[in-house]
Amino acid sequence: MNRPVFFISDSTGITAETLGSSLLTQFEHMEFEHHVVPYVDTVEKAQLAVEKINRAADNSRLQPIIFDTLVNQDIRDVIATSDGLIIDVLGTFLNKLEMALGEKPSSTVGRLKNADRDAKYKHRIDAVNFALDNDDGARINRYDKAELILIGVSRSGKTPTCLYIAMQNGIFVANYPLTEDDLEDLRLPKALAPHRERLFGLTIEAERLAAIRSERRPDSRYASLRQCEDEVRQAEALFMRFGIPYLDTTHASVEEIATRILVDTGLRGQRR
Amino acid sequence: MNRPVFFISDSTGITAETLGSSLLTQFEHMEFEHHVVPYVDTVEKAQLAVEKINRAADNSRLQPIIFDTLVNQDIRDVIATSDGLIIDVLGTFLNKLEMALGEKPSSTVGRLKNADRDAKYKHRIDAVNFALDNDDGARINRYDKAELILIGVSRSGKTPTCLYIAMQNGIFVANYPLTEDDLEDLRLPKALAPHRERLFGLTIEAERLAAIRSERRPDSRYASLRQCEDEVRQAEALFMRFGIPYLDTTHASVEEIATRILVDTGLRGQRR
Repeated sequence: MNRPVFFISDSTGITAETLGSSLLTQFEHMEFEHHVVPYVDTVEKAQLAVEKINRAADNSRLQPIIFDTLVNQDIRDVIATSDGLIIDVLGTFLNKLEMALGEKPSSTVGRLKNADRDAKYKHRIDAVNFALDNDDGARINRYDKAELILIGVSRSGKTPTCLYIAMQNGIFVANYPLTEDDLEDLRLPKALAPHRERLFGLTIEAERLAAIRSERRPDSRYASLRQCEDEVRQAEALFMRFGIPYLDTTHASVEEIATRILVDTGLRGQRR
Repeated sequence: MNRPVFFISDSTGITAETLGSSLLTQFEHMEFEHHVVPYVDTVEKAQLAVEKINRAADNSRLQPIIFDTLVNQDIRDVIATSDGLIIDVLGTFLNKLEMALGEKPSSTVGRLKNADRDAKYKHRIDAVNFALDNDDGARINRYDKAELILIGVSRSGKTPTCLYIAMQNGIFVANYPLTEDDLEDLRLPKALAPHRERLFGLTIEAERLAAIRSERRPDSRYASLRQCEDEVRQAEALFMRFGIPYLDTTHASVEEIATRILVDTGLRGQRR
């Protein structure tokens, strides 16, 4: 049996799930069954959650682990009656922070001040729309509004990276696909030339690129190893010639690619 | 002065930043300056981080707060020499989990077993590509592959929600925009009829919708309050007539919308 794990929150449960999952992956020989229980914001919902936890305990005959970010004490008290082991994700650290900061935590549901949150949120959604509008070289005349322009050959990972950065960091990112025409004469495409200092290159191993392209267009010249090798070699030559920073996406997740780009470019390493 | 806060990790820093930010928003009257320091995976990089922390302490004359998810003890020892207050995000809970689970944590960098991670990751990127290919009713013939189809009027929040769900949860989500033609006769569009049980509706307050549309096309009929009111009323009538679950996105973030949809549909509440 897999051990049941519950992520319980009065909000989305993302914080509890992010931390809890990181912790559990440290236990390599165990298997877990995840249950996300968000929006537990009343005593009644907490009682339903307790029933779920106890049922999972009975079924698995293993004590469930509960990661919770609940702040309301009445709700916490209900969860405490369950058969699970509670890991109090926020409370554990709040005392220490209270002492260091000399202020009592607010113990209210919700994260950011409203106006602040709304402005930041609008910016993130605007960034997602910008990424979509400026995907794949679609509207080259808006590159002046981009904080960052990812360039690379087709299927090197530009689009998912752009969307992730826009969604998570609210940064305006465009992307431009380097085509054979661009690559042949080793010149920077005209549309990109004025924005050289905001360019960041993505590259990828030719074998991996061929595999990805083959899923889209099997047995095509586009997906052939030979073609992929040529394009990748030329793209890297272009990056080096123009001093464009670049990274290899072959073995990296979109989170890792985004983190490296934002730190390298200084767009994330430090912010308010 | 704002108090400096550091998120230090041997990986992307996402776990440290997610938890740390949640904690700090409990201190409403304080202002913080965030510094993300990812990929601290050598003693040398740890020493650079310590210099950064101590410089921030000197400049602000406030003790920095450090949230870290470092697992290597040598690296932790270096960070411990800094002037900051350390919140050990993972270590704090590992002992408790070790006792409950009866297994020692692995203390290695990295999260998921490799093969597992690669398969899950590929699925997420496939889901992002699926969302892009099936955005805005683009290729209605692939709805049979969709686990979920979001429907709603133009600018009700379908696209960002689809992309977020695909990216974070690896779920195949398509979306279909309800047009005036669809809405007029209160019938389910033909393309959607065979997939009724996978439909989920998004609605939005007409005033907010008019504001969002006005940014795109100012002073248009499309953005007029009258038009928005008509479309929203008809869309909600359609949802109710066909028993399609729906939610109001007006005051919700994309994380909140996604969480509610996935719990309501059972796509996230419980999973392995």
